[in-house]
Amino acid sequence: MPLLNTHLVSVAQLRRTDLDRIFAVADRCLPIARGEETSDLLRGRLLANLFFEPSTRTRLSFGAAFMRLGGAVETTVGMQFSSMAKGETLEDTIRVIDGYADIMVLRHPDEGSAARAAAVSQHPIINGGDGPGEHPTQALLDLYAIAKERGSVDGVKVALIGDLKHGRTVHSLSRLLACFEGVELILTSPPSLAMPDKVLADLDAAGLRYRLVPTLADALAAADVAYVTRIQAERFDDPVAAARLISGFVVNLELLESIGRTDITILHPLPRYNDLSTDVDHLPGAAYFRQSHLGVPVRMAIFCEILGKELA
Amino acid sequence: MPLLNTHLVSVAQLRRTDLDRIFAVADRCLPIARGEETSDLLRGRLLANLFFEPSTRTRLSFGAAFMRLGGAVETTVGMQFSSMAKGETLEDTIRVIDGYADIMVLRHPDEGSAARAAAVSQHPIINGGDGPGEHPTQALLDLYAIAKERGSVDGVKVALIGDLKHGRTVHSLSRLLACFEGVELILTSPPSLAMPDKVLADLDAAGLRYRLVPTLADALAAADVAYVTRIQAERFDDPVAAARLISGFVVNLELLESIGRTDITILHPLPRYNDLSTDVDHLPGAAYFRQSHLGVPVRMAIFCEILGKELA
Amino acid sequence: MPLLNTHLVSVAQLRRTDLDRIFAVADRCLPIARGEETSDLLRGRLLANLFFEPSTRTRLSFGAAFMRLGGAVETTVGMQFSSMAKGETLEDTIRVIDGYADIMVLRHPDEGSAARAAAVSQHPIINGGDGPGEHPTQALLDLYAIAKERGSVDGVKVALIGDLKHGRTVHSLSRLLACFEGVELILTSPPSLAMPDKVLADLDAAGLRYRLVPTLADALAAADVAYVTRIQAERFDDPVAAARLISGFVVNLELLESIGRTDITILHPLPRYNDLSTDVDHLPGAAYFRQSHLGVPVRMAIFCEILGKELA
Repeated sequence: MPLLNTHLVSVAQLRRTDLDRIFAVADRCLPIARGEETSDLLRGRLLANLFFEPSTRTRLSFGAAFMRLGGAVETTVGMQFSSMAKGETLEDTIRVIDGYADIMVLRHPDEGSAARAAAVSQHPIINGGDGPGEHPTQALLDLYAIAKERGSVDGVKVALIGDLKHGRTVHSLSRLLACFEGVELILTSPPSLAMPDKVLADLDAAGLRYRLVPTLADALAAADVAYVTRIQAERFDDPVAAARLISGFVVNLELLESIGRTDITILHPLPRYNDLSTDVDHLPGAAYFRQSHLGVPVRMAIFCEILGKELA
Repeated sequence: MPLLNTHLVSVAQLRRTDLDRIFAVADRCLPIARGEETSDLLRGRLLANLFFEPSTRTRLSFGAAFMRLGGAVETTVGMQFSSMAKGETLEDTIRVIDGYADIMVLRHPDEGSAARAAAVSQHPIINGGDGPGEHPTQALLDLYAIAKERGSVDGVKVALIGDLKHGRTVHSLSRLLACFEGVELILTSPPSLAMPDKVLADLDAAGLRYRLVPTLADALAAADVAYVTRIQAERFDDPVAAARLISGFVVNLELLESIGRTDITILHPLPRYNDLSTDVDHLPGAAYFRQSHLGVPVRMAIFCEILGKELA
Repeated sequence: MPLLNTHLVSVAQLRRTDLDRIFAVADRCLPIARGEETSDLLRGRLLANLFFEPSTRTRLSFGAAFMRLGGAVETTVGMQFSSMAKGETLEDTIRVIDGYADIMVLRHPDEGSAARAAAVSQHPIINGGDGPGEHPTQALLDLYAIAKERGSVDGVKVALIGDLKHGRTVHSLSRLLACFEGVELILTSPPSLAMPDKVLADLDAAGLRYRLVPTLADALAAADVAYVTRIQAERFDDPVAAARLISGFVVNLELLESIGRTDITILHPLPRYNDLSTDVDHLPGAAYFRQSHLGVPVRMAIFCEILGKELA
């Protein structure tokens, strides 16, 4: 169990063997995640689900994972009710809660907050999103969804679509995809929202093939999986130009039909707004809700590995 | 189990046999609801208690019902922290949480929201109040309170008092009372807040006897049960006229003594403000707190019926 | 079990024998509080953790105590979502929730609120802080921390430092210290924030020795335990004078080294801001985080005693 008693702060901690193991454990957790089986594996364990930046779905997903395994969960949402609002440091807050719980999930708006928490905590910290930093369990569930939808991650062609500059999920996902064999990334975004050079350099170093394509249609035509993300109009100075640019990166049925790719696997970290049309929801490859559900077994697997608990 | 795996969206789904069954199960749940017995019936089951419109007492009542039966509960309160605040549809939110939980209670400010949620959810949805729409478990607990306080619902004379125009609880309760034999409704309200014709037409169709009486004293004199509701001053244009009108529909000790009806059973959906005086709290028929407590066994019964679980 | 089925509203209810018993039970709860052992003692019991005034750490501490003993917890945070925001009385709110739970923790901004709740509740109420009133479990955990850090409370010299006028924790702690033998209090504060005469009169009546010393250095030099509290600049009219005054009551490494007292035991109710420097965190006597963690076994002991449950 390489994750035993460790903090999970960054995807950089994870090797291919870790991923294979997490997904194998997640497979065994699936019937429990779906409520088809029950488990008492974490009976007596207490999770502090600390969402100083609110995120209902991520919070409920971590909570469901822990409770379905028989554990108990304490929750805090938002910062306005916390001592941090009055000036207490994150470190002091964590040192106190460290004495209440066996493990903590931390979501916080500041990049680096999870690492700061991990530096002072005796109990394991799981990064549930540290602002523009990382959200490692989201990347893991994205990867797990690719594996479940396509049979394997090795050899898959993934189009990353939308705001590739600010999207922490696409950065983390790209880095994890580099752990697999024969993966190809197809990147498409407005020019001003392209994947950062720093991430591309890491992909080069890891030997992951990628190519930039200018249009969404070209990207979808070449991909097995379309990973769609949101483009925020606020990122642009000119709202009229922004609306036109963004409209070029919307995945909808008309586009998929026009290029003959209604068979493509569609993923999305959700929530979606205008970036992914509901008129594709009926397609067999529209996998984004199944993807979101896979967050539960993946997080169950993380809890089991870190707490050293093995399902029978 | 006619409710097995169904959504509970409206009281219109319920027949007399359903009500009899729910109340029989609620009777068996009573000692568990009161903490006199413990139960593991829902061990391993997970409720998502989704209060996008806050309502502390209803949320805690559903939660207590589920936890007392051994289940686990995840909670969200308010909309400001949810993706819906940023524009995600209710349908998408429900489709995601559907993958976390075995059953959902939904409270939401929009009429029809529970039906919309039910249309996309694989797991059962219980309507915990959809704005001006319905709040079926409140009507069920009101009815159950009448049965417990009076021995039976059949043959009871119920005065509905206050704002009969906007009060969703009195609409739903009236419709359920129509399932019983020999019930008589006595309606009293300010003229501008009378029971809507649509509801009266339904009562006519169902063969429920009702009559409108102009004064509170007349209504109380004739009734076994006084069901008091709040009149909001904001409903009127003229605040001075409003205050005078509202004062005519306040139940207090002086009035009950003046008409010799300190024996009447008093119900109220709570919270009360000025509509029901605390000087009647000591009367043996002041049943509103007992009524609120009966929400727990009634909701336990609903959970058991929908999830197909039977108490030994 | 002298606390069986009682409300815990004030430290004035507690005698030395009660304190000895609570701490003995807390000792037996310690391995459960730390997650080294699990317990089902409160299986089937339901706590309503009612934080109408938010306090994340106190709420999580009570919740952890109850959950670690196998109980279930319902929570409400803040007042804006409650019927009280719309004008319902605290008494009505408590009467309703009384029917859901086996025991309630109440935190509320109004002094006397816990006593008002206790007056109408069938189930035990624990005061989790009633504004400027009391916070008895904080005083108990402070005392327990002194016992654990110093071996015994009897004979200990405790310096109370900072705002002794408004700090409810120092008032309650002083009164509990009067239950022990040979304790000496050393009081140091800005002149305008001195310990109230009412509290001093109670200490005189109880025969507790105390003395006022003008400087922090003198207080620290004479004490076994430094109990540091915060001074709020808002308490003063003149911000410049306030800053200078407050700076005279900051405990930091330079000061402790200058008087040769780096061996002193340091406690703090937390959160700290500028009143206690992080440069003392590495000292062996820097006990404030251990102190905060002891809130869990102390609250476990309170729950056990009130609910009449005994650990094997």
